[in-house]
Amino acid sequence: MFAARLTAAAHATQSVLAHRMAGYADVPVVHGMRYAVEGGKGLRGFLVMESAALYGVAGPGPSLAGAAIEALHAYSLVHDDLPCMDDDDVRRGQPTVHKKWDDATAVLVGDALQTLAFDLLADADCASDPAVRVALVASLARASGAQGMVLGQAQDIAAETAGRVLDLDEISELQRNKTGALIEWSAQAGAVLAKEDPTPLRHYAQALGLAFQIADDILDVEGDAATVGKATGKDADAGKATFVSLLGLDVAKARAQDLVDQACDALAPFGAKADVLKAAADFVVTRKK
Amino acid sequence: MFAARLTAAAHATQSVLAHRMAGYADVPVVHGMRYAVEGGKGLRGFLVMESAALYGVAGPGPSLAGAAIEALHAYSLVHDDLPCMDDDDVRRGQPTVHKKWDDATAVLVGDALQTLAFDLLADADCASDPAVRVALVASLARASGAQGMVLGQAQDIAAETAGRVLDLDEISELQRNKTGALIEWSAQAGAVLAKEDPTPLRHYAQALGLAFQIADDILDVEGDAATVGKATGKDADAGKATFVSLLGLDVAKARAQDLVDQACDALAPFGAKADVLKAAADFVVTRKK
Repeated sequence: MFAARLTAAAHATQSVLAHRMAGYADVPVVHGMRYAVEGGKGLRGFLVMESAALYGVAGPGPSLAGAAIEALHAYSLVHDDLPCMDDDDVRRGQPTVHKKWDDATAVLVGDALQTLAFDLLADADCASDPAVRVALVASLARASGAQGMVLGQAQDIAAETAGRVLDLDEISELQRNKTGALIEWSAQAGAVLAKEDPTPLRHYAQALGLAFQIADDILDVEGDAATVGKATGKDADAGKATFVSLLGLDVAKARAQDLVDQACDALAPFGAKADVLKAAADFVVTRKK
Repeated sequence: MFAARLTAAAHATQSVLAHRMAGYADVPVVHGMRYAVEGGKGLRGFLVMESAALYGVAGPGPSLAGAAIEALHAYSLVHDDLPCMDDDDVRRGQPTVHKKWDDATAVLVGDALQTLAFDLLADADCASDPAVRVALVASLARASGAQGMVLGQAQDIAAETAGRVLDLDEISELQRNKTGALIEWSAQAGAVLAKEDPTPLRHYAQALGLAFQIADDILDVEGDAATVGKATGKDADAGKATFVSLLGLDVAKARAQDLVDQACDALAPFGAKADVLKAAADFVVTRKK
């Protein structure tokens, strides 16, 4: 069931993005935007749509908010992959945007995808109540800017530049900013759309986000590049601290599993309605890419 | 009077930005963000604040919306100056962000400044009515993304890559996207904050935006780099079409003056209350930087 729901959510958010960009100009930047939002797992959009389903939110809102977070996530990947950042040539098994086009196009593709995310959240179709739309905009800005995702990136670069190996607390904080904040936003978006208290979903997402990052570090060690769809072993080669280097592989795996259990416990109040979100937590630590 | 009002507006938007970033982390990206929003003319923020004053909008809203457009404009400059884009070393008489720090920092500084713009517009202090805030977010997204500013950039790069010299219609469309859209947003923001019809301000801003760009092309030919605060003569050296190369210097100057007159005419309904915005139109074509 989980796999089908993940695929359905990815189709829904992709469809919103394709429809939104259908009337855009025929220029390489727009081609690059379409390319950059294709082929991902769509996990963040799925979290938005399933958290909204938990509260019975109807209409196009969940798919628009899901498309917004997928656009924002895609922007972050396009910029991360740039030669001046992580310098990656392959993403999702395909050439990265700057390899397929050029660096200037990749900068603009990322810029315009970020804008698109806020555009989608501000759209009247996202929620009839403007207070809900503006709450989604404000929380996404906090999660993705210099107090969230970009801060995590900056902390990552600062540690690398200083040649400093981070400890477990520092890595945890960095990852909470770099990847956790968007995952937390995604899982809480359903409650925001439903005007309900997002606390249980926040607890779920905090555990999920950390499990996700530990699993990513395990994949970087155990995964093979062809399956993962991007280069692996980069962190170890660079001598960077990861959850695996700090905890060891076995402890990291046990910790990820504990976090999955915590994530599922947080959803207990919802009963069987939350089964698909619980399955998502399992998926996050068992995925091969 | 105009100069004092421009300075006052710049102080107000700078102060909002400084206050907003005061609690941000002590990392190079945040230092770069503060650096990037300093020292500009603040013309877009001024247009927001003065258009709001035209309608008697009180409270912190105009300065927050003004700070938002200044953050967004600063993001576009930081990314434009990157080596893979225009490759400029000097901006506002100072080293550009990627020269003072590095390319990775400059990418993230621009990214986080864009986010900050939407963050400010979504803030409850910007307007008590969430419908107003979300209208500002939606219109800024349209003006700045792949249907606005980024499209203008993409059209500029596409022409350059193809080695094609644009004609007057193409240059006009490109500039309307690249610089006009943000100027139009700025001048209309006051009417949006006041929940009034933005049509007169839109007509003013359309003429002003084009006059601004023609004046920029004239400065690129006539200005000296030390006064302008950035390299001049770049367009001519690159063989790019500009309003000056297409119209000749004298016709370009006359056209800019006609547009100033049109801009002022559009403000006739406001009488003397609009004198400072009329003076801004004069400033746009007489400025030396």
